[in-house]
Amino acid sequence: MKVLSYDLSNTNVTLTGYLLDSSPEMPNMKQRPAVLILPGGGYRACSDREAEPIAMAFLAEGYQAFILRYSLNQDAAFPQPLNDAEEAMKLIRTHSAEWDIHPQKIAVCGFSAGGHLAAALSTMGSDRPDALILGYPCILEEMSAIFPNPVPGVDQKVDHLTPPTFIFHTFDDKLVPVSNSLAFADALTRQNVPFEMHIFPTGTHGLSLARPQTSMGLISMVEPSVAQWFSLCTNWMTRVFGEFAADLEHLPEEEVLEYSLDVKLGALWKNDSCKMLILAAMPEIGEEPHPDAMGVPLGVIIEYAGDVLNEEKKMQLNDSLRQIPVIHS
Amino acid sequence: MKVLSYDLSNTNVTLTGYLLDSSPEMPNMKQRPAVLILPGGGYRACSDREAEPIAMAFLAEGYQAFILRYSLNQDAAFPQPLNDAEEAMKLIRTHSAEWDIHPQKIAVCGFSAGGHLAAALSTMGSDRPDALILGYPCILEEMSAIFPNPVPGVDQKVDHLTPPTFIFHTFDDKLVPVSNSLAFADALTRQNVPFEMHIFPTGTHGLSLARPQTSMGLISMVEPSVAQWFSLCTNWMTRVFGEFAADLEHLPEEEVLEYSLDVKLGALWKNDSCKMLILAAMPEIGEEPHPDAMGVPLGVIIEYAGDVLNEEKKMQLNDSLRQIPVIHS
Amino acid sequence: MKVLSYDLSNTNVTLTGYLLDSSPEMPNMKQRPAVLILPGGGYRACSDREAEPIAMAFLAEGYQAFILRYSLNQDAAFPQPLNDAEEAMKLIRTHSAEWDIHPQKIAVCGFSAGGHLAAALSTMGSDRPDALILGYPCILEEMSAIFPNPVPGVDQKVDHLTPPTFIFHTFDDKLVPVSNSLAFADALTRQNVPFEMHIFPTGTHGLSLARPQTSMGLISMVEPSVAQWFSLCTNWMTRVFGEFAADLEHLPEEEVLEYSLDVKLGALWKNDSCKMLILAAMPEIGEEPHPDAMGVPLGVIIEYAGDVLNEEKKMQLNDSLRQIPVIHS
Amino acid sequence: MKVLSYDLSNTNVTLTGYLLDSSPEMPNMKQRPAVLILPGGGYRACSDREAEPIAMAFLAEGYQAFILRYSLNQDAAFPQPLNDAEEAMKLIRTHSAEWDIHPQKIAVCGFSAGGHLAAALSTMGSDRPDALILGYPCILEEMSAIFPNPVPGVDQKVDHLTPPTFIFHTFDDKLVPVSNSLAFADALTRQNVPFEMHIFPTGTHGLSLARPQTSMGLISMVEPSVAQWFSLCTNWMTRVFGEFAADLEHLPEEEVLEYSLDVKLGALWKNDSCKMLILAAMPEIGEEPHPDAMGVPLGVIIEYAGDVLNEEKKMQLNDSLRQIPVIHS
Repeated sequence: MKVLSYDLSNTNVTLTGYLLDSSPEMPNMKQRPAVLILPGGGYRACSDREAEPIAMAFLAEGYQAFILRYSLNQDAAFPQPLNDAEEAMKLIRTHSAEWDIHPQKIAVCGFSAGGHLAAALSTMGSDRPDALILGYPCILEEMSAIFPNPVPGVDQKVDHLTPPTFIFHTFDDKLVPVSNSLAFADALTRQNVPFEMHIFPTGTHGLSLARPQTSMGLISMVEPSVAQWFSLCTNWMTRVFGEFAADLEHLPEEEVLEYSLDVKLGALWKNDSCKMLILAAMPEIGEEPHPDAMGVPLGVIIEYAGDVLNEEKKMQLNDSLRQIPVIHS
Repeated sequence: MKVLSYDLSNTNVTLTGYLLDSSPEMPNMKQRPAVLILPGGGYRACSDREAEPIAMAFLAEGYQAFILRYSLNQDAAFPQPLNDAEEAMKLIRTHSAEWDIHPQKIAVCGFSAGGHLAAALSTMGSDRPDALILGYPCILEEMSAIFPNPVPGVDQKVDHLTPPTFIFHTFDDKLVPVSNSLAFADALTRQNVPFEMHIFPTGTHGLSLARPQTSMGLISMVEPSVAQWFSLCTNWMTRVFGEFAADLEHLPEEEVLEYSLDVKLGALWKNDSCKMLILAAMPEIGEEPHPDAMGVPLGVIIEYAGDVLNEEKKMQLNDSLRQIPVIHS
Repeated sequence: MKVLSYDLSNTNVTLTGYLLDSSPEMPNMKQRPAVLILPGGGYRACSDREAEPIAMAFLAEGYQAFILRYSLNQDAAFPQPLNDAEEAMKLIRTHSAEWDIHPQKIAVCGFSAGGHLAAALSTMGSDRPDALILGYPCILEEMSAIFPNPVPGVDQKVDHLTPPTFIFHTFDDKLVPVSNSLAFADALTRQNVPFEMHIFPTGTHGLSLARPQTSMGLISMVEPSVAQWFSLCTNWMTRVFGEFAADLEHLPEEEVLEYSLDVKLGALWKNDSCKMLILAAMPEIGEEPHPDAMGVPLGVIIEYAGDVLNEEKKMQLNDSLRQIPVIHS
Repeated sequence: MKVLSYDLSNTNVTLTGYLLDSSPEMPNMKQRPAVLILPGGGYRACSDREAEPIAMAFLAEGYQAFILRYSLNQDAAFPQPLNDAEEAMKLIRTHSAEWDIHPQKIAVCGFSAGGHLAAALSTMGSDRPDALILGYPCILEEMSAIFPNPVPGVDQKVDHLTPPTFIFHTFDDKLVPVSNSLAFADALTRQNVPFEMHIFPTGTHGLSLARPQTSMGLISMVEPSVAQWFSLCTNWMTRVFGEFAADLEHLPEEEVLEYSLDVKLGALWKNDSCKMLILAAMPEIGEEPHPDAMGVPLGVIIEYAGDVLNEEKKMQLNDSLRQIPVIHS
């Protein structure tokens, strides 16, 4: 994993990226979905409890994760925070190939005031995310009362380009009333934008994961029923973005441009010259390798087989394979 | 999060640490449990599929995580890999305060050959872990047949100092028969070491999380029933190590050595001079602050309240508080 | 279990009760919550898929369950179905002691048109239930268009006496739009009636449990995400009604009116004459019985101990115990 | 639902059957799996806590359920209880068609001493069940010490005809040591009989569902981790027996012997005469009915459509359809 940090254009605005490693053993993970996290804090702070712990939860699901610490307080006059979010989106999309991200699977996830910003990005942004996740979001214009600056009511901005949305909120929330989420759901319904919404009866504002690790040590911040939101959310994302491929053995053959250790055994086996070379170098593999092995690059197989080929012999085999011409069928 | 990498004494042996950030908002997370991950690969390789994805899963639960890439192939003559694991344990324990780790809550988690090494560390190691997690482990001496070097049968080494153990395996495992786990469970029973064990009927060897992201893209590596092992495991760990505290408001008062912004509001409020100073500086807080706020350091409260106090006034308040003598009751 | 069937006043209206057995081994189950199930079917039928399978699901959670097959078609002119539901409620409340039901823990659970009827009972009924469960309910007056008779819009009828409510719906529902549930949630919010609501994006109308057994054999009727509604619902009910007591050992002593085999060992042990009699009859019990046994009636203990006392000796011990006077402390 | 009670040959031995209703709306539920429940109680009693609550849990999953109260105490000399279980199996298999049971999907589920009996039936019985479920079972011959009569060690009886097995136990069990389950797992492994086994570290003997409703009101009988056994078990059963069909629209056409209201719309629609008759009687159905409707019998569709056809017209349509000759393709 790499942890990257970028200073964005506005003062004190940073984007932190958590990027999972790629590996030849994980050929199905070259295009991960990503999530841009916008912590809450009333446009006066960015809560640590809604930052790294959320990023870790998404990384465990195989997502690339980013945290944006956006403009606050006197710097938070709208649309400045929106501009920060737009800049972050653009940075992620631009680097998507380099960072193993699927460029059409970038979600934004905001909490409280960060939910307002996430909804603004999803309804008004120059570069909209592909899915929207809202935790106890500020939606209504009247929420401006608790912010340092007035903000637009984002329920008014929902259009048919707003991405599929996931919302959770608690009925008990005294600081940001549940009517905020209901108003956004109404607006989505009118625009026929599909959404999933979970309203739990109990639980205070600002629960984050609603688990002990995000509780500040306060029992009132642990709510097992609300804590279900995260697995409900990742199930929803899997339906929106699709699951990581686990059917590579059934996928249409990628076109092979050149034979080498990086090519899957199945493709090499179809060429008699390649097959003979491999059997000569490592007879242990046998005439009929295990079907599961057919979807695995030869180099990975050799690595696992351990010391069957030393580095020198591996290089020789690679060179020999590269000299065999690819004949297209 | 910080990602650290250490070269250990033996050639090509590295320890990678993933260390979650601390935050004044998470005062209950100063002593996290940690897990040392030992990937499998027949003592010929360390599988990437059993490395970073496992670390991420534990980080999401609030653990600090470490991956040891231990001695392999011709370097793997026993006890050399055990020495690597002992060195890693010692490094973690030595840095536990610095890395926000509870020094008596360090688990080891090994898969396949890494499970052999984890069990060896837990039964023969100079520094035993506090909990042991085994995924489809090699246990029996006869498993030496598939390794580059002979290894001891670790079922023979179980003693009453062996830590509480969690095991999962599949009945279908052709490479490492389920009898390995049954033999270890028998040995634990004889020594009265408590364990949790889950044997699932279907699923091939080497499933890691048994989810698409660790499947190499092969459908045979996705088994939803086996994938339950991870939540069963973290539930078990919570019972072994305890949950992160979420009752700070009920904890015995820490002794206050000096008043400051770092002290919890509840402790400041008990001293009338502190209370007056705070009310003067930020009357918004009111005579009777919300009970939940009492467990939170004043500095965090001010940070959340946003621009109620500018930096200069904050420093003034801190200085004034520090001049009030602490009277012990 | 007993299955009872009652013909109510209106023609073709029946109430079926499924009543779990009581047992001296389950002293904490004498006052079970109950649920009155109202299947859907457009006021033209009562779907079997929303009847017995729902009852079974609640029985497994320890609830008593009832199915009302209410007035349909030309008989369904409002308020006739409401009168059926009121009559069913009254019958259940009247028999609550006899049927081991807690008289203030009676929920109503309706689907589609049955959801309309459940909401009507909960907002307009002469005898309101204590909790309301709505599955893809018809709420709005405009739903009259698909019914044989016009019905009132029940969102208009919500008042502060409406019980706590659980709602689930799918965004995809073409027959009963999700705006029905949103309107009811808005009305509950205005009246400050706490609710839990889950809106899932995919899934057709009439999913019942959304599992294969209620699917009619159609794949479109199986939706694993929607199937989560039932465990979400029973978790909610546990929070509303409380869990079955599992702390009888800590409960204030019930007053003993007479010693006998029906009295808990702990109460008998406090009286030296009882203790001597018991030890004489069954010395195996020992001077210091297991603490868990103290919360169990002596008769149950003897039953489990098997043939330690034959029937005759049991009766003798019972008679002897009854002759010992109870002295109140 | 019907509740049936049978007196079996031996004195005081009863079989109680809980049989779910069939319905034309549930055409995929005509062959349900069944489970025969054998409560525990040391061959001295049959615990109510391991009887009806277990039956309800399986009924909620769509199973037919049976409770056998077998020979006890002086009547429990082996093989008398085994004979009871064999008689129960035979009774269920004989009535399987009548009771909507799949004759090759009958499981037995026993707890403690009932687990001994279940394992005996599965290894020595004249009519073996198709799956075996064991809760904290007595297995070893040495368990005879706590029974009124000696019993054979059933681990010695495992053969290759023993059905697939599910086992759960707690390490903490003082009354029936976990070595009982480990010995049975070893025997299954040697015979290559696939099994699933879950051993939880904490929890006393006799937990039943490990939930409040089976706790006798004692907190020591509630163990959330152990309570997972039931969903683990039903997931396992679904893999052993298969899920209820939810692909009737894709199934090979049943052969139609005679057209009528009981025939699926899809089959009627293939015959032009039938199609014309139906369109004439109920033009609302339209030339191109919804694809989902094609898998539903016409009579069910009419029932749902409500008053589109009165009883007389329904009978007329049925009679007309029956006069159309079936032409086999």
